[in-house]
Amino acid sequence: MPTYTAPVKDLQFVLHDVLKVSTSDIPGYNELETEFTGAVLEEAGKLTGDILAPLNAVGDREGCSLENGIVHTPTGFKDAFEQVKAGGWPGLDMPEAYGGQNMPIVLGTAVGEMFSGANQAFTMYQGLTHGAASAILAHGTNAQKDKWLPKMVTCEWTGTMNLTEPHCGTDLGLMRTKAEPQNNGSYKISGQKIFISAGDHDMADNVVHLVLAKIPGGPKGIKGVSLFIVPKFKVDDAGVIGPRNGVSVGNIEKKMGIHGNSTCVMNYDESEGYLLGEKHKGMRAMFTMMNEARLGVGMQGLAAAEAAYQNAVIYAKDRLQGRDVTGIKNPEGPADPLIVHPDIRRSLMDQKSFTEGARALLLWGSQMIDAAHRKGDADADGLISLLTPVIKGFLTDEGYAMTVQAQQVYGGHGYIEEYGMSQFTRDARIAMIYEGANGVQALDLVGRKLGQDGGKHVLAFFELIKSFCKENNTDEALQDFVGPLKMASKDLQAAAMYFMEESVNNPNNALSGSYDFMHLFGHVCIGLMWSMMAKAASARLSSGALDSAFHKTKLATGKYYMARRLPATSMHLARIQSGASCVMALDSEEF
Amino acid sequence: MPTYTAPVKDLQFVLHDVLKVSTSDIPGYNELETEFTGAVLEEAGKLTGDILAPLNAVGDREGCSLENGIVHTPTGFKDAFEQVKAGGWPGLDMPEAYGGQNMPIVLGTAVGEMFSGANQAFTMYQGLTHGAASAILAHGTNAQKDKWLPKMVTCEWTGTMNLTEPHCGTDLGLMRTKAEPQNNGSYKISGQKIFISAGDHDMADNVVHLVLAKIPGGPKGIKGVSLFIVPKFKVDDAGVIGPRNGVSVGNIEKKMGIHGNSTCVMNYDESEGYLLGEKHKGMRAMFTMMNEARLGVGMQGLAAAEAAYQNAVIYAKDRLQGRDVTGIKNPEGPADPLIVHPDIRRSLMDQKSFTEGARALLLWGSQMIDAAHRKGDADADGLISLLTPVIKGFLTDEGYAMTVQAQQVYGGHGYIEEYGMSQFTRDARIAMIYEGANGVQALDLVGRKLGQDGGKHVLAFFELIKSFCKENNTDEALQDFVGPLKMASKDLQAAAMYFMEESVNNPNNALSGSYDFMHLFGHVCIGLMWSMMAKAASARLSSGALDSAFHKTKLATGKYYMARRLPATSMHLARIQSGASCVMALDSEEF
Repeated sequence: MPTYTAPVKDLQFVLHDVLKVSTSDIPGYNELETEFTGAVLEEAGKLTGDILAPLNAVGDREGCSLENGIVHTPTGFKDAFEQVKAGGWPGLDMPEAYGGQNMPIVLGTAVGEMFSGANQAFTMYQGLTHGAASAILAHGTNAQKDKWLPKMVTCEWTGTMNLTEPHCGTDLGLMRTKAEPQNNGSYKISGQKIFISAGDHDMADNVVHLVLAKIPGGPKGIKGVSLFIVPKFKVDDAGVIGPRNGVSVGNIEKKMGIHGNSTCVMNYDESEGYLLGEKHKGMRAMFTMMNEARLGVGMQGLAAAEAAYQNAVIYAKDRLQGRDVTGIKNPEGPADPLIVHPDIRRSLMDQKSFTEGARALLLWGSQMIDAAHRKGDADADGLISLLTPVIKGFLTDEGYAMTVQAQQVYGGHGYIEEYGMSQFTRDARIAMIYEGANGVQALDLVGRKLGQDGGKHVLAFFELIKSFCKENNTDEALQDFVGPLKMASKDLQAAAMYFMEESVNNPNNALSGSYDFMHLFGHVCIGLMWSMMAKAASARLSSGALDSAFHKTKLATGKYYMARRLPATSMHLARIQSGASCVMALDSEEF
Repeated sequence: MPTYTAPVKDLQFVLHDVLKVSTSDIPGYNELETEFTGAVLEEAGKLTGDILAPLNAVGDREGCSLENGIVHTPTGFKDAFEQVKAGGWPGLDMPEAYGGQNMPIVLGTAVGEMFSGANQAFTMYQGLTHGAASAILAHGTNAQKDKWLPKMVTCEWTGTMNLTEPHCGTDLGLMRTKAEPQNNGSYKISGQKIFISAGDHDMADNVVHLVLAKIPGGPKGIKGVSLFIVPKFKVDDAGVIGPRNGVSVGNIEKKMGIHGNSTCVMNYDESEGYLLGEKHKGMRAMFTMMNEARLGVGMQGLAAAEAAYQNAVIYAKDRLQGRDVTGIKNPEGPADPLIVHPDIRRSLMDQKSFTEGARALLLWGSQMIDAAHRKGDADADGLISLLTPVIKGFLTDEGYAMTVQAQQVYGGHGYIEEYGMSQFTRDARIAMIYEGANGVQALDLVGRKLGQDGGKHVLAFFELIKSFCKENNTDEALQDFVGPLKMASKDLQAAAMYFMEESVNNPNNALSGSYDFMHLFGHVCIGLMWSMMAKAASARLSSGALDSAFHKTKLATGKYYMARRLPATSMHLARIQSGASCVMALDSEEF
């Protein structure tokens, strides 16, 4: 069975050597001293490695079941969830006023990677709750916050998000779920929602659904959608759980992966709901959840890749097969370990250089969210808004590809379920789909985010790279970084320029290249992260770091990414610049 | 549930317009007239679409079970297998002397794609039998051929190949299964083999295992391996089935996919076996099966991609979501179909341009095998030997990637099992692993095939491209083909040159780039196929083809591949030319 070891050292390196969190002027960051974050991460590492990781295969094998309207989670999930709650983990980065610990999101993200890496399906129960709580925090009345948040921050009650209906997912304007206003100010919600992660289960006393629905008489399409709080059990003003609401589970979906999470068909039958935020502004409220959720899903891509990679390394060191062509490495054994072979190295280096770069990107992005939330930094807010679809789309595509590579290291043993490598790929696959399929992320990036605020944020991103390159141009330790970063960034700029020039007359010229642009952008982001990490590692080495092997490995891993992964940017640029004509050449019936 | 429609028209186009099979001088090809192959393909299309495809999901859901030593296949498999046998399909390209129909392999491949596309797990029962029969045909004594082949050609008895043991797959020199010589000339085989596809089942009267084992006292390692025929039931000289042999199923593996095929742990306990071919030359005999099997596995990659693509197209035309940004296409409906969106087109064009190119490559390769077998064409034999790892590795990697893209078109519905798209990816995944994991294919390509016969075959391949380009340089209809093909071919030549120059002092410089070389080579092959197809389509158009829409679509699809996929070659070249240093930079313990 696979094991999971929390990457504490690497997270600490990014937090302190690269992002230098404890000296940042973001309010609250002064608490993030090395020893403190180290202690938190070690503690989370124990919980995730010892308790959550061993349940990952159990969840996959058993799945969830629906019996007489009650959803049962896999063996051990309930006990583990109690331990998670007892440790206060769900409220780590939630406000103290509602029982949280008020830590910055950058720390929540670091811990979140561990949870997801150890057990993605399990972690979704609290992940969805976190997103729902954030939406109530941002859009709820004080009375709503007081009523719902204290129990959600502790995960005594969990949350969900209900968007998709059988006939619509991406295009929510087509939604049919209705919300009829009642005299007491509440609404009666009726309709069916599908693909509701953590939709119901036996690990919490209540489930607080956030449901998108249309109030009759409102504007047509997406502009007539409102968001409602719909609890499984009604709750009185004193916060005491009352009778069952008109919410039931129609079915649990059989899925390719994340079997441990109950993906429910939810039926709303005149259930009592409470408007969250403004009427007909439901999408805005929902996007508070969605943006957080999209970064969380990007994190799942990274986390799955990390977990799979760790096991691929163990197997590659253990499994004896063939001999090193440059000279026998294990003369006492019948063969050398897999890891001596260059093609296995290529695969492991692809994985390692991706996961470490992606980790830095996520933490950097989380720092921007903290800067936006905690000190009102509008530039940071704009940049993370731009990067959100890149992080979601690129990290989940690549994360999935890396789980496939890790599985491949196992040969036939990767294909049978006994070794657990298949589960990583099956679980990781969903991250490319939910919270907006990756094609929708690409559309969001090119169609909306790129030109936001007059293109200000993408220009700021280019400027950031330019000044990094200028500043470090003559640093010999960074010579394998600055040049490739500059070239990759030029490809990205050329692509953005192409979109500007060529989409005026035909928007399809941009849209046909959106997916490639998302990947091109992703590579440049990781290239920038590696350059920043190389700078930090090289600074450590010149100041005589105690752990010089770690920092040398960092530099070598970064060089790999710059030399072997960044050349993908020119391929994506070529695809983009070929335009829409060959993409749109066929009539629909010619397919 | 997914459907499957055999791509008869496209197969006919490749057979007749591109390869012009019926006018070829390969013995037997004169039978392959358009009407004849059309009739065969239509018939196979009915069987695969109506009988095998509907059983695909059944096989996935039910899987195989082992009860009291007996393996049960999924509901309907046995009946369907009877229909396949009754139609004589297993013997289509086997010799008449043993009950076959003696058709060229090029036709067997065309039919084989349909079988595999409709139901990969089911088709493996006959696919393994075909491989085992081919090995007996090539290496058996006349008595062995007479005894085993008539029943195997009809699939009354099925076959298997037994290579892998728990501790060794790629490195078969480590094998422990023993073959003790007996006084009567037979051997007693003892040992355990794992991952034996179609290892046992309830659809045939006997199972003929081909088993690799070591005769005590023979040379060490791979040079001491011999191949044996080991039947499940012994057979007397009159061909009558006798008592059970010492062969039993230890377990059926739980796998990511191909659940309908019984992947068995096989235990050999002093079972009676008969040497096939020469002592200690087992690998040579096994490679007869392996080479055939590798092309068959490459075909599985294509077949899965085709089946998944067909369903993605149906869904993209049917599912209404969002509006065409260039103008509403379905004003009566609440939204436009997915297929109007450029990013969905990008995905479908990636899929379509791959499958049609891969189909041509497989049929072209099959024609080379026919040329080698039927007219002793040593050049064709050398070229297909070179291309075999490319076809296996590239087509299964890309085929898998395409099933993932097809699944993505379905959004959330692609992730739940109900729609069947998950099965295509789960089934296709194995093709990258078995019959030599793709990393091993890359090693075979760079370490063995590239320099075979002094590099003669790769030079012939380059010459082929060169003369195609020269011949068609001024053809306006091919202007989007010749240029890109030339450039891609130059990248391939540069990579080969790099290997020659840089691997002298350090073989790892070649081995670190082997995987990229395999993909680079694959793209060039598909680029050549598209150029040949474009030429054929354009010839048809200028001669006033009746079905001009088909030929115009061909050209447009080919242009897509040349413009949007071939640019990958320069990325692979850059990765290759970065050499081994960054790949091998870390010590084993630094991972």
